Amino acid sequence: MTHQRIVLAARPEAEAGLQHFRLETVDTPAVPDGHVLVKVHYLSLDPYMRMRMNDAKSYAAPVGLGDVMVGGTVGEIVESKQAGFAPGDTVVCMGGWQEMAVLDARQPGLVRKVDASKLPLSSFLGAVGMPGVTAWVGVNHIIEAKAGETIVVSAASGAVGSVVGQLAKAKGCRVVGLAGGAEKCSYVVKELGFDACIDYRRFPDFDALGQALDEAAPQGVDGNFENVGGLILNVVLSRMNAFGRVALCGMISGYDGQSLAIDNARLLLTQRLKLQGFIVSEHMSLWPAALKELGTGVATGQIRFRESVAQGLAAAPEAFLGLLKGKNFGKQLVKLV
Amino acid sequence: MTHQRIVLAARPEAEAGLQHFRLETVDTPAVPDGHVLVKVHYLSLDPYMRMRMNDAKSYAAPVGLGDVMVGGTVGEIVESKQAGFAPGDTVVCMGGWQEMAVLDARQPGLVRKVDASKLPLSSFLGAVGMPGVTAWVGVNHIIEAKAGETIVVSAASGAVGSVVGQLAKAKGCRVVGLAGGAEKCSYVVKELGFDACIDYRRFPDFDALGQALDEAAPQGVDGNFENVGGLILNVVLSRMNAFGRVALCGMISGYDGQSLAIDNARLLLTQRLKLQGFIVSEHMSLWPAALKELGTGVATGQIRFRESVAQGLAAAPEAFLGLLKGKNFGKQLVKLV
Repeated sequence: MTHQRIVLAARPEAEAGLQHFRLETVDTPAVPDGHVLVKVHYLSLDPYMRMRMNDAKSYAAPVGLGDVMVGGTVGEIVESKQAGFAPGDTVVCMGGWQEMAVLDARQPGLVRKVDASKLPLSSFLGAVGMPGVTAWVGVNHIIEAKAGETIVVSAASGAVGSVVGQLAKAKGCRVVGLAGGAEKCSYVVKELGFDACIDYRRFPDFDALGQALDEAAPQGVDGNFENVGGLILNVVLSRMNAFGRVALCGMISGYDGQSLAIDNARLLLTQRLKLQGFIVSEHMSLWPAALKELGTGVATGQIRFRESVAQGLAAAPEAFLGLLKGKNFGKQLVKLV
Repeated sequence: MTHQRIVLAARPEAEAGLQHFRLETVDTPAVPDGHVLVKVHYLSLDPYMRMRMNDAKSYAAPVGLGDVMVGGTVGEIVESKQAGFAPGDTVVCMGGWQEMAVLDARQPGLVRKVDASKLPLSSFLGAVGMPGVTAWVGVNHIIEAKAGETIVVSAASGAVGSVVGQLAKAKGCRVVGLAGGAEKCSYVVKELGFDACIDYRRFPDFDALGQALDEAAPQGVDGNFENVGGLILNVVLSRMNAFGRVALCGMISGYDGQSLAIDNARLLLTQRLKLQGFIVSEHMSLWPAALKELGTGVATGQIRFRESVAQGLAAAPEAFLGLLKGKNFGKQLVKLV
């Protein structure tokens, strides 16, 4: 039996392109003891993957040249050599960019069975998966959003940002999003229920974006869930109230090597701000509570989301490059079956 | 009765100078009900005062033009119209840059009686006062220093930095200071017991200072108590371990308007750092425990400190300008009697 996979063919010097990926057909390996063979239904594409293409110091090891690209997946077990897992089980796992994945099911959390009877399968890669938990941890444990506060979130229509805003709204916050383009902004306000959404592409400099934020957040900003960095972060920091909190989740504006300076660090002192970078996989103890709340929210329709679905593994690189430029609309997935 | 005072004569455009202060002789006002008249023995000079000379948004209102400069003082009550305070009482208060101060003793914390029988009077403006409590809050509640960690503190021979290092040493940390000049560095290591101290003046650029820090902190940096900002902060951030904490207490390098950018904000994310600005007067609930520990430390000789004492109120402006340039050695005071 063979399957297709996508490996890292070369490391980007600056902007990532199609030439950095290679599609291969390989023999599906035999399943060792303790392992399972998973047929992947959906592959999740996420901004963090861009960082893993670089050979730079970060929180996770880079993907090796010639190695399969990392990625979260949801699929079905077709063969099991580990008790507790059986063919037909639906699982979430880090299967990577490939059609079939052999995974060590003995490692805690690596292969996680899910009940797909009440929720769409793809939601376990979005609002009821890593992106949703990322939002939940940021809102509840880093920002600690409280009723009456103003919370700003960038990449607001995305997999993480959309959940951030809906969780903060449910807490009684005023929620302001930033997104690229009128269509996304309209969706964020009308469908997701944010109080306002700024099309950052219309305000390309500090003063203009700052003025737009002043109008959308007239009481200033108490909490910021940051996915973008750069200009957006500098503008939001300049509008923060005393004791504001910033959950630093991503800096997609700098993944190709652009400057990510915080221009006016004096503000951190004069406004007594807290900035904290975090990685959701380092808060595993919070996952069960988060997944329970998020699953209920999605099942009852309280938490809404949108997906961009590319068809077939070969479409993954282009979909991923589009994600880095904000061409997706909502959670970016690749459907493999 | 008349007394002398120093008022803010003009706001600095950039660097502060003698021309921004004015010495005046004024009639000592009558003491209203609820107030006390304090004869000031020592005036404390602290970097935060530079920020109060600017008309800029900050955590405290600027000093008004023509108003007496703010400042912590220790002195003796000579007249009291408030129960619980009597002539002869030794008090710590925000008396400002003047020989006599009339203060509202009904406001909680504004005039605080201290027992000067076991501790030197001036220590209530240093290690057993605001600077010491600042150090204590940063080490215990922002950095949360733990045994075995490496803690870096800038302005290490100063009133705050010297206590930071000694508290962290007592917790079992490796402590690295940064100070200006060989004499201060020698004092920091030999007298205060730091493990190492870097003379930052010898390493004026990022790479050189980084290399010096690599040698002094071979295991990387877990906690940073930051008094200076700018280049020093950027270098320390670049050497921080995962989950490092930065207590942002001061940014003396930018008080004259210099850039205070954090050049590589990506590190906050990749190393999951926490940066937090804080002001000690907003943590009043912690003061009693801090003052008790600091008072014991000073009384037993466990916490050591050094003072630079200027003589007479007229010497205050020059001493203050010297403090901003690091010309002081230890806690900068002005002795008024």
